[in-house]
Amino acid sequence: MAMVCVSDFEAYAKKYLPKIAWDYFAAGADDCTTRDENILAYKRIRFRPRMLRDVSMMDIRTKILGSEISFPVGIAPTGFHQLAWPDGEKSTARAARAMSTCYIASTYSTCTLEEISAAAPGGLRWFQLYIHRNRAVSQQLVQRAEALGFQGLVLTADLPYTGKRRDDVRNGFRLPPHMKLKNLEGAFEVCKMSLLDPSVTWNDIYWLRSLTRLPIIIKGILTREDAELAVKHGVQGIIVSNHGGRQLDEGPATIDALVEVVEAVQGRVEVYVDGGIRKGSDVLKALALGAKCVFIGRPALWGLAYKGEEGLRDVLRILQDEFRLSMALAGCASVSEIGPHLVQLSKL
Amino acid sequence: MAMVCVSDFEAYAKKYLPKIAWDYFAAGADDCTTRDENILAYKRIRFRPRMLRDVSMMDIRTKILGSEISFPVGIAPTGFHQLAWPDGEKSTARAARAMSTCYIASTYSTCTLEEISAAAPGGLRWFQLYIHRNRAVSQQLVQRAEALGFQGLVLTADLPYTGKRRDDVRNGFRLPPHMKLKNLEGAFEVCKMSLLDPSVTWNDIYWLRSLTRLPIIIKGILTREDAELAVKHGVQGIIVSNHGGRQLDEGPATIDALVEVVEAVQGRVEVYVDGGIRKGSDVLKALALGAKCVFIGRPALWGLAYKGEEGLRDVLRILQDEFRLSMALAGCASVSEIGPHLVQLSKL
Amino acid sequence: MAMVCVSDFEAYAKKYLPKIAWDYFAAGADDCTTRDENILAYKRIRFRPRMLRDVSMMDIRTKILGSEISFPVGIAPTGFHQLAWPDGEKSTARAARAMSTCYIASTYSTCTLEEISAAAPGGLRWFQLYIHRNRAVSQQLVQRAEALGFQGLVLTADLPYTGKRRDDVRNGFRLPPHMKLKNLEGAFEVCKMSLLDPSVTWNDIYWLRSLTRLPIIIKGILTREDAELAVKHGVQGIIVSNHGGRQLDEGPATIDALVEVVEAVQGRVEVYVDGGIRKGSDVLKALALGAKCVFIGRPALWGLAYKGEEGLRDVLRILQDEFRLSMALAGCASVSEIGPHLVQLSKL
Amino acid sequence: MAMVCVSDFEAYAKKYLPKIAWDYFAAGADDCTTRDENILAYKRIRFRPRMLRDVSMMDIRTKILGSEISFPVGIAPTGFHQLAWPDGEKSTARAARAMSTCYIASTYSTCTLEEISAAAPGGLRWFQLYIHRNRAVSQQLVQRAEALGFQGLVLTADLPYTGKRRDDVRNGFRLPPHMKLKNLEGAFEVCKMSLLDPSVTWNDIYWLRSLTRLPIIIKGILTREDAELAVKHGVQGIIVSNHGGRQLDEGPATIDALVEVVEAVQGRVEVYVDGGIRKGSDVLKALALGAKCVFIGRPALWGLAYKGEEGLRDVLRILQDEFRLSMALAGCASVSEIGPHLVQLSKL
Repeated sequence: MAMVCVSDFEAYAKKYLPKIAWDYFAAGADDCTTRDENILAYKRIRFRPRMLRDVSMMDIRTKILGSEISFPVGIAPTGFHQLAWPDGEKSTARAARAMSTCYIASTYSTCTLEEISAAAPGGLRWFQLYIHRNRAVSQQLVQRAEALGFQGLVLTADLPYTGKRRDDVRNGFRLPPHMKLKNLEGAFEVCKMSLLDPSVTWNDIYWLRSLTRLPIIIKGILTREDAELAVKHGVQGIIVSNHGGRQLDEGPATIDALVEVVEAVQGRVEVYVDGGIRKGSDVLKALALGAKCVFIGRPALWGLAYKGEEGLRDVLRILQDEFRLSMALAGCASVSEIGPHLVQLSKL
Repeated sequence: MAMVCVSDFEAYAKKYLPKIAWDYFAAGADDCTTRDENILAYKRIRFRPRMLRDVSMMDIRTKILGSEISFPVGIAPTGFHQLAWPDGEKSTARAARAMSTCYIASTYSTCTLEEISAAAPGGLRWFQLYIHRNRAVSQQLVQRAEALGFQGLVLTADLPYTGKRRDDVRNGFRLPPHMKLKNLEGAFEVCKMSLLDPSVTWNDIYWLRSLTRLPIIIKGILTREDAELAVKHGVQGIIVSNHGGRQLDEGPATIDALVEVVEAVQGRVEVYVDGGIRKGSDVLKALALGAKCVFIGRPALWGLAYKGEEGLRDVLRILQDEFRLSMALAGCASVSEIGPHLVQLSKL
Repeated sequence: MAMVCVSDFEAYAKKYLPKIAWDYFAAGADDCTTRDENILAYKRIRFRPRMLRDVSMMDIRTKILGSEISFPVGIAPTGFHQLAWPDGEKSTARAARAMSTCYIASTYSTCTLEEISAAAPGGLRWFQLYIHRNRAVSQQLVQRAEALGFQGLVLTADLPYTGKRRDDVRNGFRLPPHMKLKNLEGAFEVCKMSLLDPSVTWNDIYWLRSLTRLPIIIKGILTREDAELAVKHGVQGIIVSNHGGRQLDEGPATIDALVEVVEAVQGRVEVYVDGGIRKGSDVLKALALGAKCVFIGRPALWGLAYKGEEGLRDVLRILQDEFRLSMALAGCASVSEIGPHLVQLSKL
Repeated sequence: MAMVCVSDFEAYAKKYLPKIAWDYFAAGADDCTTRDENILAYKRIRFRPRMLRDVSMMDIRTKILGSEISFPVGIAPTGFHQLAWPDGEKSTARAARAMSTCYIASTYSTCTLEEISAAAPGGLRWFQLYIHRNRAVSQQLVQRAEALGFQGLVLTADLPYTGKRRDDVRNGFRLPPHMKLKNLEGAFEVCKMSLLDPSVTWNDIYWLRSLTRLPIIIKGILTREDAELAVKHGVQGIIVSNHGGRQLDEGPATIDALVEVVEAVQGRVEVYVDGGIRKGSDVLKALALGAKCVFIGRPALWGLAYKGEEGLRDVLRILQDEFRLSMALAGCASVSEIGPHLVQLSKL
């Protein structure tokens, strides 16, 4: 079977992954409405393509927090990559480096930060953090990440408790015994979400700031009010995200929330978005609506499930080619030419 | 099969109830448009969840007409519980008390008010009333309920005649011979709806008021005009309801009508809503739009059909857990923090 | 099988009529979009039902052009009733009289006007007319109808040519040899639509007026502009109609066009509507939006196909019962209480 | 099987064409959203038909750039007609001439321009052009077309690169060895789209103008901004087109873009539209919204696939008959009576 578009990798993963792993990655909260809306919302946005512009020399590079990436698609933080491929996050790190883009490693990785770093020295990586009840655990993780050369700290804000994902409950999902949340070993027993601290507030940003010189990116913002608070509390970036529809169901699609957040932020910090990206043209829409870069979650896992590092590179290359082609067909030769004039938000 | 969400109980009931009973409970008027719209309308409402608020201590209790309930979900009045479980309304009363919430017993119960009271002494209960052509029957029911410690009187306003439920007509639905409308025994032959009085008007509220010191809650209001009349005639509460879509088909979904009624009432009386509640997040939406509490009809029957009192407790506990989680994920630690800022009404 | 609602008669007719007859009655133009929209448009209208109004004495009678009918549902003109039942239009006339409503007999009847009159003496009937190239034919028909006691003349305005109904083309539809367009026998060869005059204009209303003292009702109006012209040319009534979706596909649903026409007419003439009526509540919606009466086309044919006169009476009685019940549940005790306050046009 | 409407030809072609050819003609970019939207958008437009206008004498002729055509439907440029019928573009040219309409021959024809001209001398034809990196190739083509009597030059503006059509990638689509891009033979190796020049800009219109006295029509415009630029750069006509949904997916449906372009152009040049035309009433809608003429792409190929010249004539005749009938039923006797009053854009 030819792997022509990202959906081909999804079909492959659904067919070949163990059901419990597929279900875990595919899961959305409750009725999965928001998970699916993330995709549908892109389809409601129409391009306004412009013709007869010189698109012979295409430049699709961009910068996020000062670092150049080869195109505006990074790897969102997702847990348990060994469920998709034996090498787990090491393959992810290698693929991201090979494609010159950014990989946000999750706290819930099945490889240590040290293994990830060693697998792909020099790659651009950010570290995703939950704040634990035991703040020393979080502090130690931040400092390990900084020491290992991670260049950004992504604080997940939308998981005071884990969303209700029905299939995981039915399956009694838990990590297979031979996989570990290696970054947390010794700190406490794995997979007990209740060790996350649901009392975290905006003031904890200041505490986090006191621990590290890394830029702080907050992930999980969906409203203008929270975007305003994020800027006020000094973050360097915002990832508009609904956790792939795995937390509160029936919140907004991320591409819809992006519009609101970008308007509130007014360029004071960089804004990114994840959720629902399946085609290069989705990336173009997100950038037209003000995102500096998008991050992919499930598509990266499908790539891993297909062929590890190579499969993820395939996924990234397809998105890269599609993004470049969409830009050209819309009349943009470089990322700087992308703007809101390119899209029309449907009345639907 | 694991019972993970309310729909699991629906599937169970559909599979195991006698068809004629399932059909009776499931029935909607005419094309069942309103029955189904009650559910679909919730899906058109989007949350605007807020992040990084301290949700470590969750308080989901509320009060209705001064009585505390453990969370804002009560049991709506529905008839013929013995069709779902041999013990009928006795199980319902016990489950409601066990979960510290309010149970509205129907005139068309298959247990007497006395049996219901005796089954769960001390539970918070309201009594649902139709006004009969023979007013003495209604008067006697009101006075029995008051004497038995029922704490509210719910007048159903939307059934001057019974709606046309096609499946019931096809099935020739009637109660099995061993079940009785026990509260009406002796008063008149059972199941003759024509004994209800279609000439009832707002002035009958005054008559009802003259019979009892119980608060009067009117059920079945769908417009601002009627909400205004209800307040003017001195009721203590309004249940926005379309009788589960069983009366006039193609009226508004209750969650849509709630917005209109809340706006008209302006806090002068408490407003509740029933119809279409299937998830804890539906409860959160209803409260965000101004309901003080919601009531569940069919989900309670499905719980009974599953395991009587225990099954209904399961349903209530699932809704309770989901409601608490939704609140936390939306950034609310107590019911008092819930407000219209949490939702966005879709343009659809 | 119990015949509970109009759709039951449709299912029966689809099952038992010869395919060529079913297809002819069911046919819509082109993609049948308008035929289906006629029904869907009703579903987009929501009631605003009012409670606690005395609905113990229901009066569902109304008057059209001064004649009382037992409820506001008449029989629209449709051709070839012998395709549905051997007795053809004689059964239709009897059923309409039995139910005390109005029957609009079609030019393309398979019984003569004389047979129709004789079958049900004293029934309220209007005659539907096409204007033929040979005006003498039309003149003779008008004068026969008037002499026979028909009380209104319905001029069909939307058929200068016959719409393209694909199934009829595929089936090579034509009347079976033993059926005749009896009203046109001798005048010209049957079923040649090209004998209709596509040059008819508004001025021909004046010619028609010169032939008869009967009130003239124009059928097929869909815009405010044409409604204005109809009033200006002195008609007594307008039937908002798209010929059951059989002429120009993708015009407006009749219930949508009704709103526009009623607004233009401002009560100067009576306005009726046909197309898409399947339930008593559809009748209530049409009246709420300003129709004085509705007419049913296909449902009447399904009734005939079921059991001739008796079947059509069944259909009418179901609609009558449903209409009465809908009125009561919406809080109206008489037709005069029905008004636009009862409905809300959906934003969809 | 009777060929009653255009969809019948589509069904035939799908059944009898080799899969690879069907897929190539059917292909849309990415998810085929725009391909399908082209059709769906027509369905959202409602007619406002007018009655009792004299439509006995129908005149459906129109003129494009001064040349009369028998009705406002021409043949859009599509490639590789030999995939549909052995004679290829020669049959197309003959059918267009037989029906007295305009045929836009594609650069990617499988017959030479000379063969096309010889097949149907005297037919009205335009030539569709891509601008090649090797400008001499384009210049030679333009001059050959002009010398052969082609009467217009259609510059395709929306293909700086070829869109991503997944099925073609999966099928490894390429022309069978016995077919050739005959107009380009000798110039360079066939089927290498990369020989098209993605650096083309509006200034190249001036270069094109310098080569020929033929009117220049620009094809692929979708926005008011580009329409304004087209007028400013001196074209004689604009074809609103999205290349049948084969280039940038999720741009506007062409009938929606037409409204915007017509408004911008204000009658300064003629505007045409292609994409999604499947019925005569679609043609009427396009004209009502300001198109001077429409062009059909896939329907022409389906006609060829059915019976070559004869099949294409059948398709054109069906559209002609349907267009005439739609006009009459909408109350227009000639093309000059068609205007925006005939349609209502749905709020959907």
